[in-house]
Amino acid sequence: MTTTVTVKLYFEAAHRLHNPAQPEDWNCRVFGKCNNPHGHGHNYVLEVSVDGEVDPATGYLIDMKVLKDVVRGTVVDEVDHRNLSIEVPWLTGVNTTAENLARVFFERIAPALPRGVRLAAVTVQETERNSASYRA
Amino acid sequence: MTTTVTVKLYFEAAHRLHNPAQPEDWNCRVFGKCNNPHGHGHNYVLEVSVDGEVDPATGYLIDMKVLKDVVRGTVVDEVDHRNLSIEVPWLTGVNTTAENLARVFFERIAPALPRGVRLAAVTVQETERNSASYRA
Amino acid sequence: MTTTVTVKLYFEAAHRLHNPAQPEDWNCRVFGKCNNPHGHGHNYVLEVSVDGEVDPATGYLIDMKVLKDVVRGTVVDEVDHRNLSIEVPWLTGVNTTAENLARVFFERIAPALPRGVRLAAVTVQETERNSASYRA
Amino acid sequence: MTTTVTVKLYFEAAHRLHNPAQPEDWNCRVFGKCNNPHGHGHNYVLEVSVDGEVDPATGYLIDMKVLKDVVRGTVVDEVDHRNLSIEVPWLTGVNTTAENLARVFFERIAPALPRGVRLAAVTVQETERNSASYRA
Amino acid sequence: MTTTVTVKLYFEAAHRLHNPAQPEDWNCRVFGKCNNPHGHGHNYVLEVSVDGEVDPATGYLIDMKVLKDVVRGTVVDEVDHRNLSIEVPWLTGVNTTAENLARVFFERIAPALPRGVRLAAVTVQETERNSASYRA
Amino acid sequence: MTTTVTVKLYFEAAHRLHNPAQPEDWNCRVFGKCNNPHGHGHNYVLEVSVDGEVDPATGYLIDMKVLKDVVRGTVVDEVDHRNLSIEVPWLTGVNTTAENLARVFFERIAPALPRGVRLAAVTVQETERNSASYRA
Repeated sequence: MTTTVTVKLYFEAAHRLHNPAQPEDWNCRVFGKCNNPHGHGHNYVLEVSVDGEVDPATGYLIDMKVLKDVVRGTVVDEVDHRNLSIEVPWLTGVNTTAENLARVFFERIAPALPRGVRLAAVTVQETERNSASYRA
Repeated sequence: MTTTVTVKLYFEAAHRLHNPAQPEDWNCRVFGKCNNPHGHGHNYVLEVSVDGEVDPATGYLIDMKVLKDVVRGTVVDEVDHRNLSIEVPWLTGVNTTAENLARVFFERIAPALPRGVRLAAVTVQETERNSASYRA
Repeated sequence: MTTTVTVKLYFEAAHRLHNPAQPEDWNCRVFGKCNNPHGHGHNYVLEVSVDGEVDPATGYLIDMKVLKDVVRGTVVDEVDHRNLSIEVPWLTGVNTTAENLARVFFERIAPALPRGVRLAAVTVQETERNSASYRA
Repeated sequence: MTTTVTVKLYFEAAHRLHNPAQPEDWNCRVFGKCNNPHGHGHNYVLEVSVDGEVDPATGYLIDMKVLKDVVRGTVVDEVDHRNLSIEVPWLTGVNTTAENLARVFFERIAPALPRGVRLAAVTVQETERNSASYRA
Repeated sequence: MTTTVTVKLYFEAAHRLHNPAQPEDWNCRVFGKCNNPHGHGHNYVLEVSVDGEVDPATGYLIDMKVLKDVVRGTVVDEVDHRNLSIEVPWLTGVNTTAENLARVFFERIAPALPRGVRLAAVTVQETERNSASYRA
Repeated sequence: MTTTVTVKLYFEAAHRLHNPAQPEDWNCRVFGKCNNPHGHGHNYVLEVSVDGEVDPATGYLIDMKVLKDVVRGTVVDEVDHRNLSIEVPWLTGVNTTAENLARVFFERIAPALPRGVRLAAVTVQETERNSASYRA
């Protein structure tokens, strides 16, 4: 049996899909209107799931407030109301697709979790219809 | 680690739950008001998840637009604003429960995906409270 | 100042948009795929708002359970899991657009409300993106 | 391949997070405003998933109405409009975190399912942003 | 033409419907399970709408952050994670129906708004299916 | 009695709140992180309501597909996947608050509606918690 705790956080950011190593027409063809140089944006939804043992004293796998603070400290506070393709140092060189964001967010959140709590999955929802997950 | 991409699509259709190999009273008892011969209907939600490798050039596991086009071409365009129990040739003989729809949709979508992209799960939501998934 | 109480109810039904007084090609052009003779369907959302005075003894404008019972008795129980274009006697001759449903539902609910409670609006949502209201 | 059926049910309850074996200041520090002795409350969302074989005669893994009746009978009817920390005999001694509720609900639902239907997961959502799952 | 700004806030609280001036059986009959002496609870949604003139310098009718701060300061911080029927001094003697909460919240928010901004409506949603509004 | 039809459309855009006629510190203080020169973004929700007479032949106040086409042609196609503060000619000089967007969108949609259909309200939702309406 596995216990999982999931929290949802939100941030609003601009971004542009672009690979500078490729010619302009490749970018245009591959990313379409998402390649617009002035950027576009989203109300991102970030879903973070952890698993582990429930502490019998607290009944918590992790205090969800603590989990949200970790996600805020490592990710949300750094990306909220930012342009992901320009302003976030640790996203430099990352094409900000949902797939890549899920992976990079996972790699930042995992080591910041308290001992005994394992990061199970990070899902980045760009719109209600489009999302990507990175999971252990 | 696994990367998964999920898209959501919608269609509106009528259907009737019925097994013609069984007597009328069996159908009536088993399917209740869902056996109504004039049919009823739903705003179906179709959630399709794929997994695979992220292409380093694009940052995509699959372009979500391409994934949606596959789901539209193989499923949504054929069932939207249709009566699933009467009009869809490849549903002939299928009792259109959410469970059966999830499986048949999976079988139609899987072979149409680009090489390297694996269909992981198809979920058919009849209402916000009822859904069925078919997954690898 | 006005106090309003609003309840939401759900039903799932099939229907077909069609005007039998018009030729087939007119119906086809005007209603498109909604004219499909085998019908299609929706998870309808019905929002009913009433206004009036709050009773100081109960703190209720109306007991929302009573309001829902009125809406169920006059509308939902008669249309749920039905084909609106074939099976509902009091919709005979009504083309079941959201606009017409909102009006006819309003006319059925209004006289069934307890004295002192005024029907303010009925909204019929066909999909999350399409709705019609009929209001006093 | 696995087929899963998921249903969603709702209940509204009060609760208080508290461990009577610990001193007051520990409870205060660990549970914060959730330790308020007068309680607070939630519109809980309960998501229950089962897996198993689809019956070829019905096209059902399980009639979702039957599944909901099991969840209502074993859980929802006993907790809806209750104070989970005071009134529910089988929660005596359980600190009513989402993690513990998910486990206890799982243990009540599993043995009540029809033969051949396996309980896969129970998710308890306290708010749209916080949930816990217990899964096989 | 009217410009309206609407913000949504959330709080989680316990409450009990009860009129101490009435006998127990009256309370039992009128409020049913909502009269449970141990209370039950909700994830309340509070929707607050204001109207007025848009300031040409800022493009704001009101900074939505300011509006939310007013609503938090006058209402949300005082009711969140509380038992509305026991702990909130300014709700003493108020039966905490959605209708009454909407009115009392309106009366607290209105005088705290900046000059030139008029409170238009307060809606209290107890569940996704039940709400009450108090509007000018 | 009034009949109203409402449609919802979506677009994803970047923007920056800024008044170039004011000094930098004023902009910083008034708009906070929304003044970030690299922009941020939203999944905007656009709700458009019209009222008028229902045509007895069609049962439509307006074909919702036609209404959506008007909104797409005058607004959505011009703002989707754009930076509202840089790229949209008819937003030049407009500080792109929700209030201003609602008004400008209203002014573009109103004259494009078919005769007999009156624009009643345009609501621009920046996030699930923040919106502005402009109504007749």
